[in-house]
Amino acid sequence: MSTFEQLKTEAQRIADVKYAAAVLNWDMEINMPANGVEARSRQLATLSGIAFEMGTSEKFSNLLQAAKDDASLDALQKRNVELLWSDFQKAKKFSQEFVEEMSMTVSQTFAAWEHAKKANDFSLYAPQLEKMIALKRKQAEIIGYEKHPYDALLDDYEPGMTAAVLDEYFNTVRSGLKPLLEKIKAQPQVDNSCLHQHFDRQQQWDYSIAILKQMGYDFGAGRQDISTHPFTTNFAATDVRVTTRINENDMTDCLFSAIHEGGHALYEQGLLTGNYGLPLGEAASLSVHESQSRLWENNVGRALPFWKYNFEIAQKTFPAQFSAISQHTLYKAINRVEPSFIRTQADELTYHFHIMIRFDIEKALMEGTLNVTDLKNYWNEQYQKYLGITPADDATGILQDVHWSHGLLGYFPTYSLGSAYAAQYYRQAEQDIPGLNDLIAKGDNAPLLTWLREKIHVHGRFYNSQDLCEKVTGEKLNFNHFLKYAEDKYSGIYGF
Amino acid sequence: MSTFEQLKTEAQRIADVKYAAAVLNWDMEINMPANGVEARSRQLATLSGIAFEMGTSEKFSNLLQAAKDDASLDALQKRNVELLWSDFQKAKKFSQEFVEEMSMTVSQTFAAWEHAKKANDFSLYAPQLEKMIALKRKQAEIIGYEKHPYDALLDDYEPGMTAAVLDEYFNTVRSGLKPLLEKIKAQPQVDNSCLHQHFDRQQQWDYSIAILKQMGYDFGAGRQDISTHPFTTNFAATDVRVTTRINENDMTDCLFSAIHEGGHALYEQGLLTGNYGLPLGEAASLSVHESQSRLWENNVGRALPFWKYNFEIAQKTFPAQFSAISQHTLYKAINRVEPSFIRTQADELTYHFHIMIRFDIEKALMEGTLNVTDLKNYWNEQYQKYLGITPADDATGILQDVHWSHGLLGYFPTYSLGSAYAAQYYRQAEQDIPGLNDLIAKGDNAPLLTWLREKIHVHGRFYNSQDLCEKVTGEKLNFNHFLKYAEDKYSGIYGF
Repeated sequence: MSTFEQLKTEAQRIADVKYAAAVLNWDMEINMPANGVEARSRQLATLSGIAFEMGTSEKFSNLLQAAKDDASLDALQKRNVELLWSDFQKAKKFSQEFVEEMSMTVSQTFAAWEHAKKANDFSLYAPQLEKMIALKRKQAEIIGYEKHPYDALLDDYEPGMTAAVLDEYFNTVRSGLKPLLEKIKAQPQVDNSCLHQHFDRQQQWDYSIAILKQMGYDFGAGRQDISTHPFTTNFAATDVRVTTRINENDMTDCLFSAIHEGGHALYEQGLLTGNYGLPLGEAASLSVHESQSRLWENNVGRALPFWKYNFEIAQKTFPAQFSAISQHTLYKAINRVEPSFIRTQADELTYHFHIMIRFDIEKALMEGTLNVTDLKNYWNEQYQKYLGITPADDATGILQDVHWSHGLLGYFPTYSLGSAYAAQYYRQAEQDIPGLNDLIAKGDNAPLLTWLREKIHVHGRFYNSQDLCEKVTGEKLNFNHFLKYAEDKYSGIYGF
Repeated sequence: MSTFEQLKTEAQRIADVKYAAAVLNWDMEINMPANGVEARSRQLATLSGIAFEMGTSEKFSNLLQAAKDDASLDALQKRNVELLWSDFQKAKKFSQEFVEEMSMTVSQTFAAWEHAKKANDFSLYAPQLEKMIALKRKQAEIIGYEKHPYDALLDDYEPGMTAAVLDEYFNTVRSGLKPLLEKIKAQPQVDNSCLHQHFDRQQQWDYSIAILKQMGYDFGAGRQDISTHPFTTNFAATDVRVTTRINENDMTDCLFSAIHEGGHALYEQGLLTGNYGLPLGEAASLSVHESQSRLWENNVGRALPFWKYNFEIAQKTFPAQFSAISQHTLYKAINRVEPSFIRTQADELTYHFHIMIRFDIEKALMEGTLNVTDLKNYWNEQYQKYLGITPADDATGILQDVHWSHGLLGYFPTYSLGSAYAAQYYRQAEQDIPGLNDLIAKGDNAPLLTWLREKIHVHGRFYNSQDLCEKVTGEKLNFNHFLKYAEDKYSGIYGF
């Protein structure tokens, strides 16, 4: 066996263990009976311990070294080895003790968050969150960074991204969106009461399945289930599962969750199976992932061409609710802009403010310029400043997100970046695919999916998000594409 | 940490990996999309490779040795160590090469079996089955045995069981059941047409759930799903799952599958969680397992007391089908005896002949006194001899069972033993629990479950099946208890 084949064999064995853990996690969310949680937690801990051992072992190190020194590799193999090598170097920095401390701290912080959220009291969470932040700062020191400790954390989700780049990015976001939001707020509000009727659960479910099929999601390599928080998970490009949720008083919850997760899933289903367990068989970054979900959810699913085709189907599916309204009424309703407290329910414009606030907080926490004890006040001030609203309580404010309790600092920015990439990619797709919007208006999404597959999915982690964007669109990430998209859309809807 | 605690920690880690594989297997049967099979197979192979490595490692060997030499262990710890030690000694006998060869041969033999069964042609399967038999004989040599190579295989499913004991056992089965079957065949056949009407799927499902609850199956520590072949699986005593299947033209399929698997599951749910991953937290043997499923299915579920309580519920659930029939008609219908081709559909009397035939075959294959090429003829002759019928084709004859393709030789006898144990245990329970049948006739199964828990479940693997039987009933396995039970039941039904 060649050095590369030997390395690949072991990398795939490690991936097997990680994907096995992913199956156990999926099962825990979807199927597991209540009493199973204790045994499942220990099974997951054991699997991740084994994967960590294998991924930092001398055996793996030797295989990596041999492949690295092998001059006969082709360009793709070489890139796989490079990425495996840098993952390995990073993983090696952590002691077993640190990994265990982090794992324990996550369990405790998550439990404290759950408890505090139920009690609607941030003070019950703060002491444990402080421990988590301290540990994340320690983690940043272990990883190392050039300019800002936050850079070390960002790298986990968004290779190559830095606090400095994000500072500039969010300045553009802020200066671009603030006046647009003001313009919208000055207009009469859009009526979205058509969405808040009673919608039958089974009909919503069937409708979401039909839409996933229309998008090109392959049910031979996936399935949809119900969960409290919609998510996508994958155990191979040939087994990529999505979930949605159903709100009987709001049909958009199920529909747009399905489209959003479907966008994530199309990315995973489009990865090359020949690279199973290797970096080129993995998604490039979280922002690229989010660009796929957001592109389908917003640039496709909340745009006019999609509804030209789907409005009649929606009317047939929900005749009692939609037979008396027009296509434009529905289109406007699903695009209503309104400052609100909960990030996951925000419209696509104010969404960026939610992220910006979290970015500022995370950066300051990592710098040490903001203390956990001041977090709640800071949060509320920022919501007042940017969205003109102040959360009535902790559960709808500072306690709403699970991320920090899991130690996921540096994750939030990818949500905003993803939407920006989505707008830029969609604009490029419009240029590359003749009559794209007419095709979508006829229910034909295949050319768009083919384009995404060729331009983005097949590359796996070959390019990082910024280089990929430049390769596909000819320029680095440029928030003006989102701005232009938003101005066009909302000027049409709000009439300014 | 004490020597025992250290050993326990590692044994539980190994169990974590095995249970993780069990989750992946369950998911493969129940949820997995079609295209996922290749990745899943390799994930399963990796997990079992890791579990094998861990379970035969020097680290584990040292931990075992230290605990074995530790004089301070209590009786339960000591028994755990003894059993872990003997499992380890057995596992150590196999080389990695043998394990891989067996795994590959199973895949190939299973594929050949599937193909041959579809084509209804044993000759397509025979060459591959020969390879499997040769490998099983090799396995028996590796394990070692005193008298008969079959003993080495039996030990996997039924510790302490030998071909000699089974010879004697099946002689008793043969001589006892043959005249009883003749007596039944001399009587007019029971009418079971009431079972072969159309039964709504959802109603059958709901009914099976209600029956599982009535048995005491804990849905907080389990769930029921649908699969082609009903089975029970467990990932801890706190997560024990069952499946059933639904035949719209036969309500007994779903009902008795649910009760049978429910019986298996009650055993697993009754194992001590404190012994998770240790022998005393595992079932004693397959025959003890089958004694639990059969006891609930037959000694409870096909007996009069159960139907005294459940007939009215069945009538309410299926009024169109059952409102015009009597309790006794239904009782007789579900107990009709009739020689038939398919083991899994056999009544509880002729079932033993199906097993006896397979036992004779397996023993002869291991001895080398029967060749695979003669297998089909031998099979057909035996069916004619004992049941008076000859399979019309291979699919309903020699190709019906999956077991041999998986290398599971030595497994079949436990099905017959299980029924025999069930009769003996139930007779004992009647003696130990005052008014047991009256309680069941009132729908109160709790005293029976409590008895099973105390007498059987909590012991795990502490006793082997034969010693357990002696401890609980005061005598070794005695087929006369089954015979007496069968004579009482069928004389009442067939009137002789």
